[in-house]
Amino acid sequence: MPDFTDNLRPSQPDGPTTLARERRQSNIATEELGHHLLASDGFLERQARILPIIQQEPLFSKDQQQNLSRPERFKLGVARAKLLRRMRDTHRWSYLEYQMAEYLVDDVSPYFLHMEMFITTIREQASDEQQAYWLPLTKSWKIIGAYAQTELGHGSNVRGLELEARWDSRTKEFVLHSPTLTASKWWNGSLGRLANHAIVVAQLLLPDPGSPDIYVSHGPHPFIVQVRDMKTHQPLNGIVVGDIGPKYGYITMDNAYMLFDQFRFVTRLYPYCHVTHYIYRSLDYLSITPRYSGLFGLVCNSPVQGQVITLTRIYTKPEKPALIYGSLTYVRSNMVHRARLVLARAVTVAVRYSSVRRQFQDRDGDKKGPEMSVLDYPTVQIRILPLLATTYALHYTGLAMQTVYKNARQDIEKGNFNSLAHMHSMSSGLKSLCTILATDGIETCRRAMGGHGFGGGSGLIQVNNDYLSKPTVEGDNWMITQQVAAYLIKKMTAAAESPDTAGADETDARFKEFIRNKRCLGSEKRTYDILNSDLDVVKSFELRATAMAYDAYEQRVMKKQNWNSLLIQLHKLSRAQSESIIVATFFDALSNDKTLSTPIKSVLWDCFRLFALYSMENESFEFFRSNAVSQADLNALASRVQDLMARIRPHAVKLVDSWMVPDYLLDSALGRYDGRVYEDLFNRAHRLNPLNRITFNPNYWEDEIVKGSGDNGGGILSKL
Amino acid sequence: MPDFTDNLRPSQPDGPTTLARERRQSNIATEELGHHLLASDGFLERQARILPIIQQEPLFSKDQQQNLSRPERFKLGVARAKLLRRMRDTHRWSYLEYQMAEYLVDDVSPYFLHMEMFITTIREQASDEQQAYWLPLTKSWKIIGAYAQTELGHGSNVRGLELEARWDSRTKEFVLHSPTLTASKWWNGSLGRLANHAIVVAQLLLPDPGSPDIYVSHGPHPFIVQVRDMKTHQPLNGIVVGDIGPKYGYITMDNAYMLFDQFRFVTRLYPYCHVTHYIYRSLDYLSITPRYSGLFGLVCNSPVQGQVITLTRIYTKPEKPALIYGSLTYVRSNMVHRARLVLARAVTVAVRYSSVRRQFQDRDGDKKGPEMSVLDYPTVQIRILPLLATTYALHYTGLAMQTVYKNARQDIEKGNFNSLAHMHSMSSGLKSLCTILATDGIETCRRAMGGHGFGGGSGLIQVNNDYLSKPTVEGDNWMITQQVAAYLIKKMTAAAESPDTAGADETDARFKEFIRNKRCLGSEKRTYDILNSDLDVVKSFELRATAMAYDAYEQRVMKKQNWNSLLIQLHKLSRAQSESIIVATFFDALSNDKTLSTPIKSVLWDCFRLFALYSMENESFEFFRSNAVSQADLNALASRVQDLMARIRPHAVKLVDSWMVPDYLLDSALGRYDGRVYEDLFNRAHRLNPLNRITFNPNYWEDEIVKGSGDNGGGILSKL
Repeated sequence: MPDFTDNLRPSQPDGPTTLARERRQSNIATEELGHHLLASDGFLERQARILPIIQQEPLFSKDQQQNLSRPERFKLGVARAKLLRRMRDTHRWSYLEYQMAEYLVDDVSPYFLHMEMFITTIREQASDEQQAYWLPLTKSWKIIGAYAQTELGHGSNVRGLELEARWDSRTKEFVLHSPTLTASKWWNGSLGRLANHAIVVAQLLLPDPGSPDIYVSHGPHPFIVQVRDMKTHQPLNGIVVGDIGPKYGYITMDNAYMLFDQFRFVTRLYPYCHVTHYIYRSLDYLSITPRYSGLFGLVCNSPVQGQVITLTRIYTKPEKPALIYGSLTYVRSNMVHRARLVLARAVTVAVRYSSVRRQFQDRDGDKKGPEMSVLDYPTVQIRILPLLATTYALHYTGLAMQTVYKNARQDIEKGNFNSLAHMHSMSSGLKSLCTILATDGIETCRRAMGGHGFGGGSGLIQVNNDYLSKPTVEGDNWMITQQVAAYLIKKMTAAAESPDTAGADETDARFKEFIRNKRCLGSEKRTYDILNSDLDVVKSFELRATAMAYDAYEQRVMKKQNWNSLLIQLHKLSRAQSESIIVATFFDALSNDKTLSTPIKSVLWDCFRLFALYSMENESFEFFRSNAVSQADLNALASRVQDLMARIRPHAVKLVDSWMVPDYLLDSALGRYDGRVYEDLFNRAHRLNPLNRITFNPNYWEDEIVKGSGDNGGGILSKL
Repeated sequence: MPDFTDNLRPSQPDGPTTLARERRQSNIATEELGHHLLASDGFLERQARILPIIQQEPLFSKDQQQNLSRPERFKLGVARAKLLRRMRDTHRWSYLEYQMAEYLVDDVSPYFLHMEMFITTIREQASDEQQAYWLPLTKSWKIIGAYAQTELGHGSNVRGLELEARWDSRTKEFVLHSPTLTASKWWNGSLGRLANHAIVVAQLLLPDPGSPDIYVSHGPHPFIVQVRDMKTHQPLNGIVVGDIGPKYGYITMDNAYMLFDQFRFVTRLYPYCHVTHYIYRSLDYLSITPRYSGLFGLVCNSPVQGQVITLTRIYTKPEKPALIYGSLTYVRSNMVHRARLVLARAVTVAVRYSSVRRQFQDRDGDKKGPEMSVLDYPTVQIRILPLLATTYALHYTGLAMQTVYKNARQDIEKGNFNSLAHMHSMSSGLKSLCTILATDGIETCRRAMGGHGFGGGSGLIQVNNDYLSKPTVEGDNWMITQQVAAYLIKKMTAAAESPDTAGADETDARFKEFIRNKRCLGSEKRTYDILNSDLDVVKSFELRATAMAYDAYEQRVMKKQNWNSLLIQLHKLSRAQSESIIVATFFDALSNDKTLSTPIKSVLWDCFRLFALYSMENESFEFFRSNAVSQADLNALASRVQDLMARIRPHAVKLVDSWMVPDYLLDSALGRYDGRVYEDLFNRAHRLNPLNRITFNPNYWEDEIVKGSGDNGGGILSKL
């Protein structure tokens, strides 16, 4: 409905004017940098091609999704996911193209676990016979599967799962049974409302060969189970399954609970999946409790359809050992790589809006001209610009992580397992640190945007709510840092045994040098020249991590301290080590690059320095204690960080532009490429908000809520 | 519908068993501590009395509120707020009792601004004639008012507001007009859908007495304006007003946008409110730009009904000067005081659930018995127990803040303004620090709870979403720290002028001592004995803050550095000062207490130490630089913190019990008093979740979403 507001414009200088000026003042070539960051695997090209196809579908409009109830929002998620799958058929999209479409639509797909866990587990772990039966059904989505491992009472400690799968040798059936409430499966995505099948992990109970009436537990084991009727979509008899309810995020995901009551299924129809997926899911804990590794041997010999099961208790090497380490490391290294784009999204919004937003004039200035862009205040810069630098740091780390993963996997397939432990440690430490940097970074950006950062126009609410899951999933960020520490302590122990020999690898050499220097105290008093040498910055991070690794080694190995009593220290060690990796990787990437133009190279070096010195300042005392940096240099950090921010500031808008996050994905009034912040905020409020179509009765003495409805408050009460 | 899950119980030891053991192992008297904390103003007694009244009203059931859409949730908020107001009449509740009911229901009332800002502003600032007209209408809720100051383009900088109020001397009307889109009022609570009146702040444009055709702006000025028709509840002609849409939180608040198009109103009917409320809303900026203070004088002489307005341009002292400082300080000191209960809520959930939740056994232990309570892991303790200590720290700080406020106000009413600046600085710094501690603390607790912390059963989603507004409202947490720094620099400047005279107050004496010590370098080399003396802990915090204040003074006053270039340093100074206040206040409260029993006193001293030493460890380098603490002592902090946590650990459950947060308010499966965590999580999922009443069609090749509905996807599309 037209009204006088249609003709109003924002005050000057408006957003487009401001952003145009921002873009003029930087000599960075956005296209070149964007290409450098995102073109290598065709990402940019796919994004440009898929985006218009997605945007023209009314179902993918994001205008109203914040206004829906949980059930409506879930329906929308299902409708979109089904449409995307149909479009994949229609457009003959590759899986990468399909993933791009999902990325742009930005819903967590309710079919995600079917695609990522169910199909993958069968493809990678099932026998040939099993694959021949299951893969056509799953790939065509004729059946929808989920992965049901976690229980109400047990997450990380897979060995503690309570669900039982008892083998009834008389009827040749497995009997799934939940002996307690805490045995209920829980959190299992795609299963709450959608899946009709699931890989179910349960304690395998088999009759003792000596006394067949006594059942012995052989640890958790995965089974493929049908859980819902294919026609009615109702749970099968003996199964209770449903969605666990609202969460912080993942509103379009039907995370499930599921219980079994003496539920029998015949192996003839549903041969169970015998490769022990659960083992690599729980590697974190096995690797620090090595005496359990004998359980690797619990694999059943070729359990083909209907055959009686025989067991071997001796250690049998899994057929595809790479998978055991591979899957968990794969998931974590992907999270490391993806963190950069999530953070880039928040930083894009924060940088653009903080340029457009103006507040006050310089109190020491001449008070002429418009108010200052808030991004010119150091107190805004210190929150946003280190995060802008972090997006680049995460980028190179993500690439390096993927390379390490790829190389290690190739080695493993050749039977060489030397790089496994390193890869596992690196992916654990980086998953922990990078997801924290991104999660906290989103919220820091939001707060830096003042009042409007609290509004839906920020575009950050859903991505924030969804991403809040990352610090705790796929290995809790605090728990998995033990992997890094255990690895480093082992390396230090080895180094201490023969400090005077040549290093077997980079870390070993560094550790040995540290130990040799320790012997002749005084000779290692020289600290690094972090204010004048980028290489010395890298070395200072390495020395701090090495010194902390030595401390941990001393406590655990020399002084035999209780492991749990060291956990906080070990967590700090992991952070130091992971920061060191990020800083070194960033440095190497810039040092080795031969393609970037000088202006870009120059500002990326400043980003490197800002990331490193800002991180250093936050942990000054650790650098001081480890004698990596002098007190004088640490004292100078704050002012150096401020100088670096002043140098990066003119390029800030173009540095975020280079991440090429489309407006459709951002869905943000504050972060629009064109800077029409206020027009968009107003449009969302005045034209799109359904609450404004309801006239309320404000009189408290009347029950009526919606004016003229005649409904005396019963309407809303009926929904409670 | 009954099914086999009705008979299932959680595995042993279950929550009730565990919490009973937790409570047995501590000798703390919960009732005594709860009384000490909350009984002084009758809070506990009111809570006990109002709670059952609230709980028996079906409209206050919280079971389904997470499942509602924004419009439905807003309707529920209005229905509840109206019912609460009726109950106030029925039960003849005092305002404190009414507030207790609101606190328990835990919705942000959509009438909040009517009650807190509209009525209060009229009561405190309007003339007697105005009050006589408006107060009866507002108190009876015959009219509903809001407070419309902030605009789309201007928040903190009130002087930059764009809405114009031009005086038409011919028609004796004011003409409100929004010249731009950014002039739209924005964020104004209770106005989007409910209010029919508002106090509207606009630039007052008056004819120049010399040339009456030229209008001169006299700065922002508040007016009482009717905005909606009293019968139809539609906006009056020339007004566009509505709700701004979904936000992170505040789902039951109709934050508004509002624009005027040459809207005329007659002063006869709606005398405008002439005392300059806007001035103290903007005090933050005025106090650092003192040359604007002449604008205090812009008050209109007795603008009674219909009378022609005359102006005086000379400075006129506001009639009630206490109010000018009072209101902002009042709001901020209330936020300081309330932070403890918000944080206590999150910590209550985290402590109880982390006791009940078990995961793994001690890897160095004998592996017998149940898995460990996760609260026994130092990595869980380090996230939760310092926050538990923080709730107590915030408590005593909140009390101290209120006392300072009360005393200052009494002084002011006697014409003594000496304590004003101190009070303003203290409330600004503490508002910033305490709301950050609580906001970040909620999220830290959530993450410490692993997977279930991401679920709706945490009970933290709404309180988290609502509380996220606190770091930016009522003075952005980064911006207002300038007030603290400006105050301390002024104090240091005064101290430096005569360092050898006696101190005028405690701060002055401390500053002078610092300057005297600085003169004879070397004599002040002694650091404080923080590991053995609680008083020395307090002094080390004071020395660190004093040293940072001196640095700031040196930069700004001696070296004439640009103010903006110092903002980051000034922010750190404010944090150091505010931490020092919290630590000193906590110390004083325990030192002076004569009533607490020995076991409680003892654990509270440990909480004091934990809060202080944990805070110190996070900023070790600042304590080192300022020579407040030796490197050896700083090195020992981590282990001391861990010892303190081990001492507090057995009392953790009783320490949260003592906050007496009722289960109804917590609305948390994880945080229930009785520990029935898993039963409650399951109940919410299996019996309360409406999504489980919908059967979905998972076949992607079919448009139908709800199975058997025959709706080919059009239903959900129509809502976009």
